Amino acid sequence: MLIEGGIDYNRLCQVFGSKLITNDLLQRFEKLTGHNAPIDPALKRGLFYSHRDFEVILDTFEKKGSDSFYLYTGRGPSSPSLHLGHLIPFRFTAYLQKAFDCCVVIQITDDEKLLHRSLSEEQIEFNMQENIKDIIACGFNPQKTFIFSDMAYIHHMYRNILRIQQLVTNSQVKAIFGVTDSDNIGKTMFPAIQAAPCFSTSFLTVLGTQPRMCLVPCGIDQDPYFRMTRDVTTRLQQQKPALLHSKFLPSLQGFDAKMSGSIESGAIYLEDKDEEVREKIFKYAFSGGRMTKKEHRMLGGETERDVAFQYLKVFLTDDKRLEEIKTKYESGEMMTSELKDICVKVLQAILLEHRQRKACVTREVVEQFMKIRILS
Amino acid sequence: MLIEGGIDYNRLCQVFGSKLITNDLLQRFEKLTGHNAPIDPALKRGLFYSHRDFEVILDTFEKKGSDSFYLYTGRGPSSPSLHLGHLIPFRFTAYLQKAFDCCVVIQITDDEKLLHRSLSEEQIEFNMQENIKDIIACGFNPQKTFIFSDMAYIHHMYRNILRIQQLVTNSQVKAIFGVTDSDNIGKTMFPAIQAAPCFSTSFLTVLGTQPRMCLVPCGIDQDPYFRMTRDVTTRLQQQKPALLHSKFLPSLQGFDAKMSGSIESGAIYLEDKDEEVREKIFKYAFSGGRMTKKEHRMLGGETERDVAFQYLKVFLTDDKRLEEIKTKYESGEMMTSELKDICVKVLQAILLEHRQRKACVTREVVEQFMKIRILS
Repeated sequence: MLIEGGIDYNRLCQVFGSKLITNDLLQRFEKLTGHNAPIDPALKRGLFYSHRDFEVILDTFEKKGSDSFYLYTGRGPSSPSLHLGHLIPFRFTAYLQKAFDCCVVIQITDDEKLLHRSLSEEQIEFNMQENIKDIIACGFNPQKTFIFSDMAYIHHMYRNILRIQQLVTNSQVKAIFGVTDSDNIGKTMFPAIQAAPCFSTSFLTVLGTQPRMCLVPCGIDQDPYFRMTRDVTTRLQQQKPALLHSKFLPSLQGFDAKMSGSIESGAIYLEDKDEEVREKIFKYAFSGGRMTKKEHRMLGGETERDVAFQYLKVFLTDDKRLEEIKTKYESGEMMTSELKDICVKVLQAILLEHRQRKACVTREVVEQFMKIRILS
Repeated sequence: MLIEGGIDYNRLCQVFGSKLITNDLLQRFEKLTGHNAPIDPALKRGLFYSHRDFEVILDTFEKKGSDSFYLYTGRGPSSPSLHLGHLIPFRFTAYLQKAFDCCVVIQITDDEKLLHRSLSEEQIEFNMQENIKDIIACGFNPQKTFIFSDMAYIHHMYRNILRIQQLVTNSQVKAIFGVTDSDNIGKTMFPAIQAAPCFSTSFLTVLGTQPRMCLVPCGIDQDPYFRMTRDVTTRLQQQKPALLHSKFLPSLQGFDAKMSGSIESGAIYLEDKDEEVREKIFKYAFSGGRMTKKEHRMLGGETERDVAFQYLKVFLTDDKRLEEIKTKYESGEMMTSELKDICVKVLQAILLEHRQRKACVTREVVEQFMKIRILS
């Protein structure tokens, strides 16, 4: 089912002109990479559901190996704390890195936050340091991952930024990103800065001089940036970046909004304590259960609308157990409280593991990831 | 006389809200700096005729010395050859450096040329190298001058660029610079890059961390960039850059246009051979002489309209000789051919000296000027 919480993901795919990820494509991917890492739930259960040119990445990988492309993802350091929704692209990218054994570049757009002016420069710096620790804790390979702040790395990308800016008009950013005349000029030029890491020549001292293709795992809402980028790459006679699009992780309140950091009660934060996770899931998580116990036993719960179940779908790796929960809940055998309890325990375990990993990320580790060096 | 060739310089001054350089100001300047260098013809004869906050620079210089401010000028490397008109701001800035014994930063906007797309990247690089040699040949102090390419130096200025971009709207650049929706987004953001060197914090590793005021000698047509910058500095609670505005050097055809590199016959290039200079002055330089010899002897020539005389006014340092030529020409005693001959010889001598100086500018000298280092 592709219509979730008012978002018709199938239609987005059609409108944007991207392709649905088919079973054939998934099987081919699994055949090529399964020996490195078992296929991720986010992929096999359809959270990542759409793509552009992913088959070209597989061709390249098959023919030329993992040094013929790289992964690119990023983060705007708007707050010091990440929530579960933020975790998904990073965990998924770290998984893809393991599956392909390839290089990853991660852009921290500290410059964009400065353009928005709501945060002080010190706050942005602090957020960035905290965010990077969380990102590293997602399990990236230190030998093959480069994390950079735009502020510190801009000169390496500047030639590409200019090439992109030169090919994008003010009209285009108005149409694509809703920029208006009363917005500041930084907002107008910024899409070029998010586009530049799609060119491997932005990383001559990181990825080497051999041209590489780029694969961007991102939320479907980020697609406009990369459609613009793909248009520019074509005109510069360079290879277009490939994309893998995810749906949104629903907020606690349900599918009507993606999990957003701006609504406190809508998100589970990575540093939420065990009791907070329990409270949030039990208090706020929209339930697919029925109004009365009797009705629930008779009709069963609706897993598609149940937020706790949807979180399990993303974070519970055990296929058999997930299937069992689904059957029991839909048949009415399992009550909402039981489902929520399972969800709480799975999330608590994930957060615990994440916090433990993060505790190992010292300042030295951060510096190592951010050092400009040729990735091996 | 302030109306020259259709340009009412006095009115420009009023409209822009800048101040005319008064005799009192000139005398104060001469008193403060005359022991370092005799006052430049470009200043005492009114080519530089308007200013903003120049008296603040003099206050600062008097109270805190030459380390309390710096000079900023620049060049867009649109062609490999400079003409006489290009020479003026650089010669004048080199003179100011000598008079104040202060630091100078010179921005080469190779990035802007890339945004305009008419030149290849190789051509821009070549132009830049040639232009820098010409600039250095104007006599800058190697201990106190930093020449930088935006492409290479951008990361040092980026924080200030963002602060500026954040405070300037798309509407403003449309109104000030005539940018339209069909222009590229690089053109929209570019004014911030020309503004950033007005902040001494763009040069922490060149000018040190102590804040300094900035003085920009420039053509009056560049004033809009710096009015925008002054507006931004106020809002950032930083000191506004001071300005010295010059009129345009007339083209050979006269005052209707400033000397432009795009009309071959309108400009004398720094590498023009002696015969070419003679031919251009005799063939193209608009004359203030009369139609017939008889009429000229009777009415005299008009020095205000005579291009050869105007060039002498800028480039002939000897006051007495200039006055003598003026008297003789205006009385009809001196014919146009004689005036042009004097002009040709003065220009030839200047170009010869320039070429000799340029010949000494090796690649090592260029590298020395461009090296990021604390100026002494």
